[in-house]
Amino acid sequence: MTTDTNHQITLAARPRGAPKSSDFRLIETAIPAPGDGEVVVRSIYLSLDPYMRGRMNEAKSYAAPVGIGEVMEGGVVGQVIASKNHRFSQGDIVFGYLGWQEYALSNGKGLRKLDASQAPVSTALGILGMPGMTAYTGLSNIGRPKEGETLVVAAASGAVGSTVGQIGKIRGCRVVGIAGGAEKCDLVVRELGFDACVDHHDNAFAQNLKQACPDGIDIYWENVGGEVFEAVLPLFNFFARMPVCGLIAHYNATSLPEGPNRVPLLMRSVLTNRLHIQGFIVWDYASQQAEFETAMSGWIKDGKVKYREDFVDGLENAPEAFIGLLEGRNFGKLVIKTSADPTI
Amino acid sequence: MTTDTNHQITLAARPRGAPKSSDFRLIETAIPAPGDGEVVVRSIYLSLDPYMRGRMNEAKSYAAPVGIGEVMEGGVVGQVIASKNHRFSQGDIVFGYLGWQEYALSNGKGLRKLDASQAPVSTALGILGMPGMTAYTGLSNIGRPKEGETLVVAAASGAVGSTVGQIGKIRGCRVVGIAGGAEKCDLVVRELGFDACVDHHDNAFAQNLKQACPDGIDIYWENVGGEVFEAVLPLFNFFARMPVCGLIAHYNATSLPEGPNRVPLLMRSVLTNRLHIQGFIVWDYASQQAEFETAMSGWIKDGKVKYREDFVDGLENAPEAFIGLLEGRNFGKLVIKTSADPTI
Repeated sequence: MTTDTNHQITLAARPRGAPKSSDFRLIETAIPAPGDGEVVVRSIYLSLDPYMRGRMNEAKSYAAPVGIGEVMEGGVVGQVIASKNHRFSQGDIVFGYLGWQEYALSNGKGLRKLDASQAPVSTALGILGMPGMTAYTGLSNIGRPKEGETLVVAAASGAVGSTVGQIGKIRGCRVVGIAGGAEKCDLVVRELGFDACVDHHDNAFAQNLKQACPDGIDIYWENVGGEVFEAVLPLFNFFARMPVCGLIAHYNATSLPEGPNRVPLLMRSVLTNRLHIQGFIVWDYASQQAEFETAMSGWIKDGKVKYREDFVDGLENAPEAFIGLLEGRNFGKLVIKTSADPTI
Repeated sequence: MTTDTNHQITLAARPRGAPKSSDFRLIETAIPAPGDGEVVVRSIYLSLDPYMRGRMNEAKSYAAPVGIGEVMEGGVVGQVIASKNHRFSQGDIVFGYLGWQEYALSNGKGLRKLDASQAPVSTALGILGMPGMTAYTGLSNIGRPKEGETLVVAAASGAVGSTVGQIGKIRGCRVVGIAGGAEKCDLVVRELGFDACVDHHDNAFAQNLKQACPDGIDIYWENVGGEVFEAVLPLFNFFARMPVCGLIAHYNATSLPEGPNRVPLLMRSVLTNRLHIQGFIVWDYASQQAEFETAMSGWIKDGKVKYREDFVDGLENAPEAFIGLLEGRNFGKLVIKTSADPTI
């Protein structure tokens, strides 16, 4: 897709259950021209993240839904190709929420220049971007890990979970991941240095998780919900903390699960164990951006935090890759190479 | 029961569901004599509190269960009638966890002298004791009320709830109580100064609660669970807090409620609203005892906090009164007058 036209992916229909290809539409439009104060950015990398599933729904949430016919929302690393904004020059590499499209018009608001000499610019979508900061702030502010505690991380091979676990190791925790499939679990332990990783596809998952947490669970990083959470619930220690970052097992659900209603079980644990459960969004901690960047850059330089990027070529493949993300097909940060020459 | 013998109420059987009279046993024993370092206390007032239901079960909790044949646990205000402990003299009025009995032997541990000139000594079981401190510490540390916020209090006519709401008013909140029956609701508004109180026996309860909270709910004080909580759940504002103090609607349950499983609904609200849910026990904040006593005594003196005591005569009536407590029959702090002359 290297023509003179712009390509965009819009929301064609609100999914009922799992998104299908037909819920997205690939359209051609003109490449925009900047007006006064505006810039045009050519996308290089597009971030795909689970939160986008929520934007496809109409339900009330912390952010407005994407409208039918509107370009899908998403973080982008790109290059300024035309500028009538004094803050940006042609050639600048920038990050912004520019959406699922090859060329985007921006008034500069929320656009941030990147320094390609500091780190590969794709990391602005992952370890040094929103997912990394989600891991850092949620764990620091809600998880509050203490040396010797057991931290269990759901979706341990994902962009956020893999980072949470590694920060947990730096903080001196025993870190147990949960991931889908033996291969992912193996990588989580060998590559990322988790102490253990339990496969939630295994029939003996709950039992295996219990065995991997002989001292119970002090912090549970919730990314998933559903049966993963049910296996965690009986293992909480007194004063355990549970940052709720995501619930990917629920996002495609069209109805509530069968009974019984297990809310009383959950609340009993909250009361008797004095659980602290707290949902959060990375922007709640926007003031900690600089602190995060300093810490994370240092850890990466020192080899204490590793990251994986899962690149998929071509904007046209974004819908299929996103559907796979919700099914747990990727390992690490899922990034679309929107440009044919993403060499920067 | 003013004989030379001691009367005790022991746990005869672990209740299945709601406790019955036959789960308790009234027995006669000898009045104990103090050994070295010990005191004998004659009970004046015995506190009855919902947490005692948990002690009757064998399940793991934050405190050990009462054993079959053991004296039921409970807070007592009494008078030292014999002392071989240098810290206590005959005649001292004391508070301690001395159980459901007329005379108790104590080694002095956990026994605290009361000053009858400061406040009626029965208040050491209520507004100036465990229930008052539960309200104060849970609201300060977890609820963190801010002026103009809406605070909803379950079990608003109970010892804890009535105090939570009045502290909420002092902190500048709009305070909405939930109680069982029109009469209780009326008293909660007229006597305790809540802005509104909604009757959870009313068929239109959920709708009435919504109307009473036009700006949503910022803090929900959880004492109840069950259908009361279900009505609260859709009304939470962003960053709402929910101190979980009790779950009285669940205590007598012998099975989970029918489905569907509503945990995903709860967790969705946690995530999108960034709820903070936290269980606690008053002893978690033991270090705040002096702060609590200073604040609460001041408020009572200034008429800013009112309290009600619901006295029942005679230790032998404690089981029936306790069964009624779990059914919501009392208003205010339920206290057994164990002594025939509780005039101190």
